[in-house]
Amino acid sequence: MSGEEPQMQQAKARADLPPWEQPDSVGIVETKSITFAEPPNEMPLDSGAKLGPITLAYETYGQLDPRRRNAVLICHALSGDAHVAGYHSPEDRKAGWWDGMVGPGKAFDTRRYFVICPNCIGGCKGSTGPSSLNPATGRRYGRTFPVVTMADMVRAQKALIDHLGIKTLLTVVGGSMGGMQVLEWAITYPEMVWTAIPIATTPRLTAQGIAFNVVGRQAILDDPNYRDGDYYEHEPPTRGLAIARMLGHITYLSDESMHQKFGRQLRDKDDYSYEFDVDFEVESYLKYQGQSFVERFDANSYLYITRAMDYFDLVAKYASVEAAFRSVLARFLVIAFSSDWLYPPYQSKQIVSALRANRLHFAYYEIPSNYGHDAFLLERERISRVISDFLALNYARALDEER
Amino acid sequence: MSGEEPQMQQAKARADLPPWEQPDSVGIVETKSITFAEPPNEMPLDSGAKLGPITLAYETYGQLDPRRRNAVLICHALSGDAHVAGYHSPEDRKAGWWDGMVGPGKAFDTRRYFVICPNCIGGCKGSTGPSSLNPATGRRYGRTFPVVTMADMVRAQKALIDHLGIKTLLTVVGGSMGGMQVLEWAITYPEMVWTAIPIATTPRLTAQGIAFNVVGRQAILDDPNYRDGDYYEHEPPTRGLAIARMLGHITYLSDESMHQKFGRQLRDKDDYSYEFDVDFEVESYLKYQGQSFVERFDANSYLYITRAMDYFDLVAKYASVEAAFRSVLARFLVIAFSSDWLYPPYQSKQIVSALRANRLHFAYYEIPSNYGHDAFLLERERISRVISDFLALNYARALDEER
Repeated sequence: MSGEEPQMQQAKARADLPPWEQPDSVGIVETKSITFAEPPNEMPLDSGAKLGPITLAYETYGQLDPRRRNAVLICHALSGDAHVAGYHSPEDRKAGWWDGMVGPGKAFDTRRYFVICPNCIGGCKGSTGPSSLNPATGRRYGRTFPVVTMADMVRAQKALIDHLGIKTLLTVVGGSMGGMQVLEWAITYPEMVWTAIPIATTPRLTAQGIAFNVVGRQAILDDPNYRDGDYYEHEPPTRGLAIARMLGHITYLSDESMHQKFGRQLRDKDDYSYEFDVDFEVESYLKYQGQSFVERFDANSYLYITRAMDYFDLVAKYASVEAAFRSVLARFLVIAFSSDWLYPPYQSKQIVSALRANRLHFAYYEIPSNYGHDAFLLERERISRVISDFLALNYARALDEER
Repeated sequence: MSGEEPQMQQAKARADLPPWEQPDSVGIVETKSITFAEPPNEMPLDSGAKLGPITLAYETYGQLDPRRRNAVLICHALSGDAHVAGYHSPEDRKAGWWDGMVGPGKAFDTRRYFVICPNCIGGCKGSTGPSSLNPATGRRYGRTFPVVTMADMVRAQKALIDHLGIKTLLTVVGGSMGGMQVLEWAITYPEMVWTAIPIATTPRLTAQGIAFNVVGRQAILDDPNYRDGDYYEHEPPTRGLAIARMLGHITYLSDESMHQKFGRQLRDKDDYSYEFDVDFEVESYLKYQGQSFVERFDANSYLYITRAMDYFDLVAKYASVEAAFRSVLARFLVIAFSSDWLYPPYQSKQIVSALRANRLHFAYYEIPSNYGHDAFLLERERISRVISDFLALNYARALDEER
């Protein structure tokens, strides 16, 4: 490594090239998939039920090095998918959801690391979930899909990593729900996880976190179009799902960032309507977020994934966070954001305390930010700096050491 | 006054007496009403529309003193009503919403002060609102009811105070939305307001505050039973209203108080259901709150009152909070709660800064509390202490001075 800060290595944008040909882009990528756990070898779930066959949609960027020590597993958040970086086609107007972090010269430098991101089971972005066809019935699962947990999601990811012939992961990284999976990985497969980067997450969802999920789910369940989850041949419950998403968005931002972004600005008018139309920019923003979400997300997946988050509780499972981490071997980089009130820094500090109690290596960064929970998607520069240093150091260690 | 702290004067509960005969209870009370603004003398509204006739439901406790200097006006919050204290009948199982604050020996000592609380216009607890009959049509207003503002609500209250023959109010007090009305009173009728006690409130609703209202309203508007507000002869939109209320409740509590009250405790079970039933105590609590609310509140009133809150903005109306307070004469007692994230202390401090800039007398208390916004209803002892001192002092001044 040169003396320059790593993020300075990122290539300059070139005005003469389209986004997917920029030197720091992973370019045109495709979503792949594997299918496993074919009956009668279904995967057992925490609930006692079994699930199979399981398809996992995933993307990869970069190359596995000859010693297979450069694999980075990215776990996405509630509404995320396998498409982390790059474009699916030249017509694609939007890059992957963490494109600022993954690519040549970026924090997850694809010249150096092999990056993998699977869509979670229970989801609706190519992996098996409630909107998938159940081969046993020829119909979509709907509510017959079994409730899955973070551990189940991680168990399915493990099958993918095995399939790719990878024995150790240089890092497992993710924000929010992705961070819960990072913790599950480090705990469940300690020999496989060299380092772990949980961002803006928690060792267990709080009562307030459950409460927000409850309200969002209730809006979906109460939508007459929900039809007990059997809506795939009818109008979907878009109104309920939009409300859940609008509420979610409030929790992803902060009071301060909403003030800065919208304040009390009116939308295309000089005075109040004295009606229930859209008067404020923030109303317009939320309604837009709700409406655009329903075009790309399945209401049942919203229920299943939020339920998996409700159930995430290392304390219940292991008696304490400290006990949960007893078998962990990974070095940790824990990141929290000052204005995140959905997963506030005190929750990351509970992880840190448990790491300390287990004498594990860790670094903790509480990044000052006004962006709230969304900071994990928006504070690219600050996160990049700490992650690229941490990764470079640990990749060097991984190459040096036997384990 | 004796040297004892005022709250010590509160009478001891007597086990041999029913609640309404306790020495510190206002006892059995009744809701009264007045009607004014009969056509063609309707009351003009901020929107430019007119409203009339207007009925205001109100309760009073205690006696007006001969010099009429002991009147206390209480302004209720979003879901409140005129029934502040006491019981409507011996069968009544629940006391008024601020019973701990109003009664013989309590903070608003009814042996000493004459307490008045009207239900706001737009509401559904006896005052004219969308569920009232429109005498012009013989049908309920529904969505033909005009959108009202905090200033409109206060204008209607002023008519009641005039009707009662009261020239000056010893204090105007209220929490949350009630606090917004307190500010309106002090600004609009400076000569009438001797002191003002805004609690857990704000000089203007923030973007985040509007956002929560937007989501709650959308749940109501999207409920198929809403029928554009014309549901009074059909099933009401209880599902949408319940969701709005559930969401409201999250914002009234704090992360900490939800953790203490519910944590992740399961409801009548030892393990997760792996279903979408009620698993957690907090789920059960929210659903109960939602369902019980719909039995006592009108969905249209919820829309109208939250819209009035959205529109509350002293900065937009007067250029700045400081300018808004330029004509104010009242002495202020401003109270905020440390864990209130709906109307955080920084918003009360904006009021305080404006008071200071106008060289007005004020005291500011930021009460340490884990209860969140609900602290204004729950921190009875702490609030009582500061209020009873403040009132006693100012009542003595009011009796001494001419104004």
